[in-house]
Amino acid sequence: MRIVVVGGVAGGMSAAARARRLAEDAEIVVLERGEFVSFANCGLPYHVSDEIPRRDSLLVQTPESLRAALNLDVRTGHEVVAIDRDARTVTAVHTTPAGVQETVLPYDALVLAPGAATVRPPIAGLDLPQVHTMRTVPDADGLRAVLADGARSAVVLGAGFIGLEVAEALRTRGLEVDLVDLAPHVLPPLDDELASLLDAELRAHGVRTHVGVAAEAIHATGPVAAEGESTEPEGADRPAAVEVRLSDGTALSADLVVLSVGVRPDSHLAASIGLELAAGGAIVVDGQQRTSDPHIWAVGDATAVRNAVTGAVGPVPLAGPANRQGRRAADAILGRVTPEREARGVLGTAVVRVFGLTAAMTGASQRALQQAGIAHHVVHVHPGHHAGYFPGAEQLHLTMSFAPDGRLLGAQAVGRAGADKRIDVLATALAAGMTVDDVAELELAYAPPYGSAKDPVNMAGFVAQNVLDGTLALWYPADLEKVLDSALVLDVRSRGEFASGHLPGALNVPHTELRDRLDEVRAAADGRPVRVHCASGFRSYLAHRVLVQAGMDSANLSGGMLTLRAARPDLELVRA
Amino acid sequence: MRIVVVGGVAGGMSAAARARRLAEDAEIVVLERGEFVSFANCGLPYHVSDEIPRRDSLLVQTPESLRAALNLDVRTGHEVVAIDRDARTVTAVHTTPAGVQETVLPYDALVLAPGAATVRPPIAGLDLPQVHTMRTVPDADGLRAVLADGARSAVVLGAGFIGLEVAEALRTRGLEVDLVDLAPHVLPPLDDELASLLDAELRAHGVRTHVGVAAEAIHATGPVAAEGESTEPEGADRPAAVEVRLSDGTALSADLVVLSVGVRPDSHLAASIGLELAAGGAIVVDGQQRTSDPHIWAVGDATAVRNAVTGAVGPVPLAGPANRQGRRAADAILGRVTPEREARGVLGTAVVRVFGLTAAMTGASQRALQQAGIAHHVVHVHPGHHAGYFPGAEQLHLTMSFAPDGRLLGAQAVGRAGADKRIDVLATALAAGMTVDDVAELELAYAPPYGSAKDPVNMAGFVAQNVLDGTLALWYPADLEKVLDSALVLDVRSRGEFASGHLPGALNVPHTELRDRLDEVRAAADGRPVRVHCASGFRSYLAHRVLVQAGMDSANLSGGMLTLRAARPDLELVRA
Repeated sequence: MRIVVVGGVAGGMSAAARARRLAEDAEIVVLERGEFVSFANCGLPYHVSDEIPRRDSLLVQTPESLRAALNLDVRTGHEVVAIDRDARTVTAVHTTPAGVQETVLPYDALVLAPGAATVRPPIAGLDLPQVHTMRTVPDADGLRAVLADGARSAVVLGAGFIGLEVAEALRTRGLEVDLVDLAPHVLPPLDDELASLLDAELRAHGVRTHVGVAAEAIHATGPVAAEGESTEPEGADRPAAVEVRLSDGTALSADLVVLSVGVRPDSHLAASIGLELAAGGAIVVDGQQRTSDPHIWAVGDATAVRNAVTGAVGPVPLAGPANRQGRRAADAILGRVTPEREARGVLGTAVVRVFGLTAAMTGASQRALQQAGIAHHVVHVHPGHHAGYFPGAEQLHLTMSFAPDGRLLGAQAVGRAGADKRIDVLATALAAGMTVDDVAELELAYAPPYGSAKDPVNMAGFVAQNVLDGTLALWYPADLEKVLDSALVLDVRSRGEFASGHLPGALNVPHTELRDRLDEVRAAADGRPVRVHCASGFRSYLAHRVLVQAGMDSANLSGGMLTLRAARPDLELVRA
Repeated sequence: MRIVVVGGVAGGMSAAARARRLAEDAEIVVLERGEFVSFANCGLPYHVSDEIPRRDSLLVQTPESLRAALNLDVRTGHEVVAIDRDARTVTAVHTTPAGVQETVLPYDALVLAPGAATVRPPIAGLDLPQVHTMRTVPDADGLRAVLADGARSAVVLGAGFIGLEVAEALRTRGLEVDLVDLAPHVLPPLDDELASLLDAELRAHGVRTHVGVAAEAIHATGPVAAEGESTEPEGADRPAAVEVRLSDGTALSADLVVLSVGVRPDSHLAASIGLELAAGGAIVVDGQQRTSDPHIWAVGDATAVRNAVTGAVGPVPLAGPANRQGRRAADAILGRVTPEREARGVLGTAVVRVFGLTAAMTGASQRALQQAGIAHHVVHVHPGHHAGYFPGAEQLHLTMSFAPDGRLLGAQAVGRAGADKRIDVLATALAAGMTVDDVAELELAYAPPYGSAKDPVNMAGFVAQNVLDGTLALWYPADLEKVLDSALVLDVRSRGEFASGHLPGALNVPHTELRDRLDEVRAAADGRPVRVHCASGFRSYLAHRVLVQAGMDSANLSGGMLTLRAARPDLELVRA
């Protein structure tokens, strides 16, 4: 049996390695158009930042090591240019000193793992040599070369995962960095009220963010250095190499541009042979990674997957799913996939480090739920990542969305520690179809250095239970104008907190005084509903319970002022 | 309605606070025999170590703060001495300047949260003033006082969670520390092959461990200092205060002893009124925390819970479950417990820091599974806690047990980073009834600083899948003698690794050479089975697949030499 794998990075190489472990006698050929296989593409930004100083660290395997350990026939520099489905052959070309050579390889099973390609929006000047991408080892080499050559400033187009990592890397290397995104905030898949925390962290580290604006054109304004050659004039007087014009009229000068506005499935080969594609061009596969051709499987960023929460079908370019898809494709080719091991919906669990902050997410964002028309509630909590009395507790900002029947739909977290852990727990809960009751009862490892007896995940579950059973009614930052207009805002923080900044027209009654001052609140409300809040939502929850049991129409601001101020960073508070 | 809560720490205070949030008009009285309520008992060892320098940090709430925020009537120093079930009254005594006063309080609902008491084994001398326990704020005060008074050495009896934390704390304060446990290894609930890693860490930090031995007697050998008064003579010449004699004849000299051999339910009050108790004395409760008396609920360390994996019923003294039980008792009293919110089986998820190491566990240990007669497999993996190419990757040691039908049964992890996260994920998987197929497919947050595209949890799942479908056969450290006796040990590590220490009689064929040297292996086996291994089990897995597909009887050492050497710390290897 001959298995041919097209693409030798995450999904493709997983397929080839697993196939060898299952079938010692198969002939397994991996055709990779690039120079490298099985490299650590997720590590590239950290090589640019010099956090991973040695380039070798990224080259996890070589064709030689894969031959030695797994008897794989790995051919780099081989681009597949044609597939003959009837004859079951692939045609690959590669360049040798003697010229371009063509190889025709028959296959019994073909695995397509072509990955994704950088989206190139219609921006004039994208072909300038100062415009870089960040997908491959040569991309990282190129960026390191211009840094070594003295680049002082960069514009990063796109503030998604890669864009954030690249912006951090370049800033860490001392460059002036402007980060641009068309979306209303950085890291578009993140909920607004968490993304603003990342924005503040970026700005605190000197990255200038520009959101809700498009890059329109890039013009060369200075000379380009050839690699290894110094540009004249040197030093601070040297003009920046390019100017990037934004849709709001801003002109950004920089020595280089990194284009990271997203990727699209690189499915041109699959399209050329008529394989079924989903909207957006991703290759359609079944639960065994098989395409519409029974002899062809596909894995990784080029394939369409079903979102486990929204049911949306499309590409989800993540390394974890790609690796498991590769493993599954090999199992399928070799007849080893039981129904239990077929592909499942994807949650899109992801995490990114932005200087000192971590942002992590799983399942559907609030925006995705709104767009999919899925009824949901959301709760916001801000607990410490471990016991508050233990030194070094860092505040977590955790949102959790769930259906009216209690089923978990998504969760996101931002914080300086422990965010990835809580999202991994909630990703597991989501995969299991857990409800908020299940989440409230989760028994997580607790000792003071690691968590709390009521873990942040449990806390989110408790709040969600209270919402569903009516113990707690919430209001949200989106309701602010209506609340200011037609309700009494009751601020139950301390007098000092109130004085440091409060909502216009708010009445301050510290939660410890509320029982004695109910008449005063009732008089101030004068028939209007009471909308209560504190800093994080806990003291005001206590107040809310007092108010509703006193017969008042009350609701509590979800996540308190922490969430409100993050959702409305420009909100002006009254100081007195 | 009057709710009386007996015991004002974790479970009791959770019940009182939740009851108030649900019932503004209830009268809620908390009777606590100690001086403090709602204190951070899990933080006590870190106050002894001075990691939490301020004692106030541990006092999370006071009667005054609970009155102000929650209108609770909290009475410290009140010991309940009698309960009249027919009259529905409790009698409490407390000492005032005017003498002992008695209060009789009627109740509509009574919540018992008496907690646990230190087990006091029959060791002569336990009543000496140099013998301390570690359960309360005064206990911590007492230890800090003897440290301030110049104590130089300690014997800690019991190497469970608290014993380990106390040993670490005292060593951190500069004392000579001997740590004694009757069990064959420290942290008895941990699997042997992980516990030895903790033992090594303790020894590396200068704690002398003594396992498999009992303390038999404690004798005073020096003067006892009164608090705040210095003992004469001072300094290094001062004789140690006590001698602890062990069952192996060892005599340990020390200035103080900490007794931490475990706790038992403090259910004497429940017993005195005839409430149903489980074996071991824990109070029997139903899914709503109700005892055999319909007007009495019980929560926390004194209650019996069902182990979710083994079905065993008994006390599980952990803060997380206690808090949730308290919340549930209040819900039950106020008619708010739906079937979905009834008590579930407990997993016993726990974690402890031992100097630089973390040990965490969930579900049943291998020993618990054996004792319960539950058929199971176990796998061992040793992946990095994040991507290996990213700086600072720390090796995790992860074991996972599962039933022949794939259902997860337990997991444990030891490592310098990331152990708590993986056990939290697996605790969630366990709570959901997940199988190893589910675990293999978990979609966890990956970026190089946080994990790997194939997370350690996924890796354990992959290995388990391979075991269940026959792709992988394992052998274990317990099989070593039989293997050495009747099989060919095939060591597929590199020549250098082999030379640095290998099993007697092992044949070294690096895994990259195996395909070319199969005849040599076959000849050496000479009809015997081949038992292959490498350092961690991965290279030897590749070798195992080659061997079985070449028709040989092969099995791979689970977890490789890392697991074998941890399971057999005294194993002598051949160096050449």
